[in-house]
Amino acid sequence: MAEEEKGRAGASRVWRNARLATLAENTAGLGEIEHGAIVSSGGRIVYAGPEKDMPAAPAGAETVDCGGRWITPGLIDCHTHLIHAGNRANEFEMRLAGATYEEVARAGGGIVSSVKALRAASEDELVAQTLPRLDALMAEGVTTVEVKSGYGLDLDNEKKSLKAARRLGVERSVTVRTTFLGAHALPPEANGDKDAYIDLVAKTILPAIAADGLADAVDGFCEGIAFSPEQIARVFDAAKAAGLPVKLHADQLSNLNGAALAASYGALSTDHLEYTDEAGAVAMAKAGTVAGILPGAYYFIRETRKPPIALFRQHGVKMAVATDNNPGTSPLTSLLLTMNMAATLFAMTVQECIAGTTREAARALGLLGETGTLEAGKWADLAIWDIERPAELVYRMGFNPLHARIWRGQ
Amino acid sequence: MAEEEKGRAGASRVWRNARLATLAENTAGLGEIEHGAIVSSGGRIVYAGPEKDMPAAPAGAETVDCGGRWITPGLIDCHTHLIHAGNRANEFEMRLAGATYEEVARAGGGIVSSVKALRAASEDELVAQTLPRLDALMAEGVTTVEVKSGYGLDLDNEKKSLKAARRLGVERSVTVRTTFLGAHALPPEANGDKDAYIDLVAKTILPAIAADGLADAVDGFCEGIAFSPEQIARVFDAAKAAGLPVKLHADQLSNLNGAALAASYGALSTDHLEYTDEAGAVAMAKAGTVAGILPGAYYFIRETRKPPIALFRQHGVKMAVATDNNPGTSPLTSLLLTMNMAATLFAMTVQECIAGTTREAARALGLLGETGTLEAGKWADLAIWDIERPAELVYRMGFNPLHARIWRGQ
Ligand SMILES: [Zn+2]
Ligand SMILES: [Zn+2]
Repeated sequence: MAEEEKGRAGASRVWRNARLATLAENTAGLGEIEHGAIVSSGGRIVYAGPEKDMPAAPAGAETVDCGGRWITPGLIDCHTHLIHAGNRANEFEMRLAGATYEEVARAGGGIVSSVKALRAASEDELVAQTLPRLDALMAEGVTTVEVKSGYGLDLDNEKKSLKAARRLGVERSVTVRTTFLGAHALPPEANGDKDAYIDLVAKTILPAIAADGLADAVDGFCEGIAFSPEQIARVFDAAKAAGLPVKLHADQLSNLNGAALAASYGALSTDHLEYTDEAGAVAMAKAGTVAGILPGAYYFIRETRKPPIALFRQHGVKMAVATDNNPGTSPLTSLLLTMNMAATLFAMTVQECIAGTTREAARALGLLGETGTLEAGKWADLAIWDIERPAELVYRMGFNPLHARIWRGQ
Repeated sequence: MAEEEKGRAGASRVWRNARLATLAENTAGLGEIEHGAIVSSGGRIVYAGPEKDMPAAPAGAETVDCGGRWITPGLIDCHTHLIHAGNRANEFEMRLAGATYEEVARAGGGIVSSVKALRAASEDELVAQTLPRLDALMAEGVTTVEVKSGYGLDLDNEKKSLKAARRLGVERSVTVRTTFLGAHALPPEANGDKDAYIDLVAKTILPAIAADGLADAVDGFCEGIAFSPEQIARVFDAAKAAGLPVKLHADQLSNLNGAALAASYGALSTDHLEYTDEAGAVAMAKAGTVAGILPGAYYFIRETRKPPIALFRQHGVKMAVATDNNPGTSPLTSLLLTMNMAATLFAMTVQECIAGTTREAARALGLLGETGTLEAGKWADLAIWDIERPAELVYRMGFNPLHARIWRGQ
């Protein structure tokens, strides 16, 4: 950030003549305020509420007339694999032409092709390839994005991925949260020995990455085709020892009770959850673990089993909604479209979809104290929209009504 | 168009160092040419082929180095209701919150609300409300768009709609084809008398609109909730008398043999087709009627019955893919996303999706002589893409890799 910009970030700004969806907790609906205003100073919100109650603006504050537009919290994509190399359009094409998964694998496809491509790419190349995807998210008002590793699968390449992820936050005005996902898949050199690889992750890679401060959290993939609950538990124990919070890809293709396992570790979130049962939902509610709903992958892989939204509602499990951007199962770079999918495919309500990409997504990242709602004390991360009602954000498909995006007051 | 621009449109241009997907008929795949070039003059393609065989560029021709990028024909959205007033986000929200269709209707929802909004809007307002939707389509390389009336449902308001549609082509560098869809729904003042309304459409409204040159084709909605085959036939007879080609919303919710009916009138296309049977497909193939595949509506209304893609393939029915942009059942303004839906939801191949938004969409509009492929003699309508392989256009969701869009050589 240039010195001049830093100076401006400290300045005060006022957005007036706006309609606010504050998403503040314990308010009805979206926390709508019809004649609202927001004041920021030093990159943080100092007031968000009715314009008539607004304190006198600080001297020199720049004032923006929003012309009655809606302001929501800046959107948050709390589950992405944004750092990856190449794409898997060739596999997609093969499958549509009738190739079986086996034929795709024989042609070098599957996650192994993403591992190979990532290992071959330099950190600079990873950043360059990822920025257009990040720009697509930001163009729709995203101000915070989570980015996982998990295509490196050895110390150097996992480090490279996480360093590239951190650099996204330097190259762009966006908050990046990094997640170490060493337990994503088995690298080819492991020769099928999952236990030995998990040992490497838990005893060597994870501690080194934690020591370098490269990860804000630790994730895993608990599934028959990936790692067992017992193996995931060893990774989580290592995360605990390193002082890092955990999250989990759980119950996507079968019920291994991954959600309950992660909840027992106080996980920030468990994600996918198509096969989660009532015991899992109860455990999540008790632990305050957020359900990460990922309709893009469900849609793209033509899954038919839906996550148990009604159970989550019934037990008071908070729900976040995210793109799961990744080259194999969700090449999706629109959080607005993701909301539409959550509504259309899973019958989530407009309110759940919008909360899921703001307040609950912040909660899923452990950032609810900093962002996700329009409340004094939080970062001044705003999305200003050319819409008549918030439902339009969910209803449209392939349309971007963003008027302006504000990150930390600018 | 400013005089200066008209002058430039007449100039010659060369695009070299490109990879072409010509979509020319009777070529393999997408008609790929690895080291290709295109030459335009007077807004038309004078050469599209290997760069090494390119004729000497006309004197003064501007040359563009495409850096190895892919060029496809400009995309064509051959089925839209782009001209409409307001939106139906409120209904969407009500339905997600659990309201029944009856409750939505009692609250003033349904197509009747779109008719009311359109009648209340001026022609200028309709153009202003529609341009952002058109801009979203054009931003993804659309160079030709079909626009239907059908929310006016009386002479003045149908005329207003079609005039507004024509004006889109004046306001923007895009080819607009208009379609008169008086037989879309029954207006409230008809008091349930479908036969009397069809008489009005066939004997009064259609002839007046044809006389004013406001429509390039005539469409109808053949369905239990709309009009019977016999009523549609009366509209088609009037279209024939007026010298206008026909198309039909057919077999979307039930099989009334709409596809076969339309084919018997030599329809340009029949669209939706979820319930079309083999006899319908055979009739379409025989008549050269294109199948308009509309996955956006299928997705948005959570339809489960898919159009019979395999039957269309088997009988050689050409397939177009379109957004069906409309406020009630497909608020979709991305033709790239529509391609992804056709692939993901209907298992159409990459080649079928790309042909469906270029060559076959041109055929569905009776414009195959002018656009839809990269061939000498056609309009120089091009989309230049930042992609490594055409499959990426279908594979991604919510990402726009358009590098440049050329309409009539500019
Ligand atoms: Zn994931
Ligand atoms: Zn339609």
